[in-house]
Amino acid sequence: MPDTPIRHAVLLFAMQDEALPLIRRLELDDKGHLAPPMPMRWFDGRVADLRVDVVVLGSDRRFGVDCIGTQPAAIAAQLVFDKLKPDLLINAGTAGGFIQRGGSIGKVYLTGGPFYFHDRRIPLAPFEPYAEGGWTLSNNAAAWVDTLGLEQGVVSSGNSLDMNADDAERIERFAAHAKDMEAAAIAWVADQHQQPMIAVKAITDLVDGEHPTHEEFERNLHTASDALSEAVERLLRLLAA
Amino acid sequence: MPDTPIRHAVLLFAMQDEALPLIRRLELDDKGHLAPPMPMRWFDGRVADLRVDVVVLGSDRRFGVDCIGTQPAAIAAQLVFDKLKPDLLINAGTAGGFIQRGGSIGKVYLTGGPFYFHDRRIPLAPFEPYAEGGWTLSNNAAAWVDTLGLEQGVVSSGNSLDMNADDAERIERFAAHAKDMEAAAIAWVADQHQQPMIAVKAITDLVDGEHPTHEEFERNLHTASDALSEAVERLLRLLAA
Repeated sequence: MPDTPIRHAVLLFAMQDEALPLIRRLELDDKGHLAPPMPMRWFDGRVADLRVDVVVLGSDRRFGVDCIGTQPAAIAAQLVFDKLKPDLLINAGTAGGFIQRGGSIGKVYLTGGPFYFHDRRIPLAPFEPYAEGGWTLSNNAAAWVDTLGLEQGVVSSGNSLDMNADDAERIERFAAHAKDMEAAAIAWVADQHQQPMIAVKAITDLVDGEHPTHEEFERNLHTASDALSEAVERLLRLLAA
Repeated sequence: MPDTPIRHAVLLFAMQDEALPLIRRLELDDKGHLAPPMPMRWFDGRVADLRVDVVVLGSDRRFGVDCIGTQPAAIAAQLVFDKLKPDLLINAGTAGGFIQRGGSIGKVYLTGGPFYFHDRRIPLAPFEPYAEGGWTLSNNAAAWVDTLGLEQGVVSSGNSLDMNADDAERIERFAAHAKDMEAAAIAWVADQHQQPMIAVKAITDLVDGEHPTHEEFERNLHTASDALSEAVERLLRLLAA
């Protein structure tokens, strides 16, 4: 779809720890909850003439953890389009990468798609393409990638931090560079709204490497979040220029 | 949580074919889209003094199929609480059943929980209970079950029509009676809003039976939807009494 001039960008992060480096870099204001009683939190500010909002999924009222995963992400995207009406929605976050497709810890991908789901298996003919998706939602991502010296990639999303054989079959078929837990859900909402969306994903762990994902994820979350915030700030300054 | 007096019930269905028998029985009015451009559709009417709305997930703009699954269901639940503010949210639909736990084709379960996810695997200690859930959202379901001669049950949700080994391990551990694709997502939203929610689920296929789920699902969808609409109408007349 044609991207309109960008005067207002909204960044959607899953985890507070992923978002805090950027919130601090840009000195954004804490606006509280985006849509009480839902847990999503909202921060806003500017980068030159560009209005910038950050939304994080927030903390689950019962379990006290960040509301990661595709269901809260879908709701957050809907709330962003309904309430904030950005010119561009950016899903920023960390992800698993793949050595066999050039992945490394801290590497940052910027992409307008395709965004797939690898954990929606619906073997009824008309539902299969819906289940897997494959949404592409920006025509500008390639130019931004070139200017910023980042890489484009395919993102595949599911609600599990691990990867079982069914997930792996789809991730291989999609040739995904980044495995995350939110992007496809946000992409589906963006597609319903016919609004542009990109993802910026920093690699915390190598899914096809030798270390268990959850150990690498915890070890590298802060490093990857710093790389992420640096890349996102460069993108925002490019958009604001 | 304490249920308030019920003057307004909203029924949330995933598929139009599941909802149509009830919409016709109750002669509900088609109110169009609940929150354009999102695909969810809205119907309303009354059963005696009880206001009754039906929301269905609607048709995907790109793929043309009903928007089944947890991401559209989560958004629909958020829209229902935000826009319709019911006293009771009822997720009505079809589900897979289990012979080993007394399931049979056309059997109807009515339950206030627990509602689990069987396809969110997050092996980081604080996230595991959040990922699986186990929400219970009504104190009245047991009494309604007795009055209506239905059965209570545990519902487990995931985004796949099939069941792999990881799903099965969790479904066994939860001792689920019904395997569906929406209830837990709706339950999570209801929990954030601290609002009561129940599910009414009619069995289309026996997951531990001899026939493939997708074949049984297609063969039994209309039979189960008729049983579902009959049970839901009896419930609504009880609530209206």
